[in-house]
Amino acid sequence: MDAMEAILTRRSIRKFAEGKLPPETVDRLLSAGMAAPSARNAQPWQFVVIDDRPMLIEIAARFPNAEAARYASLGILVCGDLALELSKGYWVIDCAAACQNMLLAAHAMSLGGLWTGVYPRDFRVEGMRELLGIPEHVIPHSLLLFGPPAELPTEVRRFHRDRIHWNRW
Amino acid sequence: MDAMEAILTRRSIRKFAEGKLPPETVDRLLSAGMAAPSARNAQPWQFVVIDDRPMLIEIAARFPNAEAARYASLGILVCGDLALELSKGYWVIDCAAACQNMLLAAHAMSLGGLWTGVYPRDFRVEGMRELLGIPEHVIPHSLLLFGPPAELPTEVRRFHRDRIHWNRW
Repeated sequence: MDAMEAILTRRSIRKFAEGKLPPETVDRLLSAGMAAPSARNAQPWQFVVIDDRPMLIEIAARFPNAEAARYASLGILVCGDLALELSKGYWVIDCAAACQNMLLAAHAMSLGGLWTGVYPRDFRVEGMRELLGIPEHVIPHSLLLFGPPAELPTEVRRFHRDRIHWNRW
Repeated sequence: MDAMEAILTRRSIRKFAEGKLPPETVDRLLSAGMAAPSARNAQPWQFVVIDDRPMLIEIAARFPNAEAARYASLGILVCGDLALELSKGYWVIDCAAACQNMLLAAHAMSLGGLWTGVYPRDFRVEGMRELLGIPEHVIPHSLLLFGPPAELPTEVRRFHRDRIHWNRW
């Protein structure tokens, strides 16, 4: 898929069909994430890949905003590793760039993807930490869900010229 | 350019050749930014497009991490608008997704792009606010620089299997 087309046509997918993702697909998603830019190129991320169905169901039960995990083929919890960070505080932005790369890669491979928020909600951060055994210096950032799409969202146009300012506010 | 290729081959460009960007190119960059996902689809972003050379030089002089602005064709200051936010605190992540979309779109159009950090450094946030007249409820997030590339970075491979954990940490 063309890059610009992928960017403009990607939508959140909340309904997934059944199906395991082959290991090459998972590697491509993770490669896309790790190709993101980061402050001083620190690449301060860690990824917990979740394909265990009982664990995905447990996540869906505990976190209402990640209810779609129940049917997703795969979850990837993107985390910021404070021990790897070089510019304090930028891990939040770096991990978000990695997330967006993975969602675009999924869409380009005709997979559905959903970004579910974790950080900065304490109950989600600490809940994920406890559930998945994440150490203290690593902060759960976002849970991405992937799978074959079972819905076809309509196209949207989000371009709003009133959000653009020239040379000054 | 293929989406996966764009994701995997994008690199930061710090040296720009001369050249104005046509309005359609600027619109395509901004369209890519506004196509990003955001928490509860709030799209809590604002964009200050800077193509005034004296202003770009002033930015380069004030912010050492944005020194490349001196020669860039264009800067886009991505800002979070707290008046538009629906999920408190997620604007930081939403704006980062918009930034990554724009950098990928630039690369797909054979333009160079550089992500220079603003938020969460107070002196950069308040310096940009003062320089560009940004109101209190809008927070400067990142300054992206674009222009024809005057350097050809080598390919890198950032895939690290030791950052991947399966089902638990």
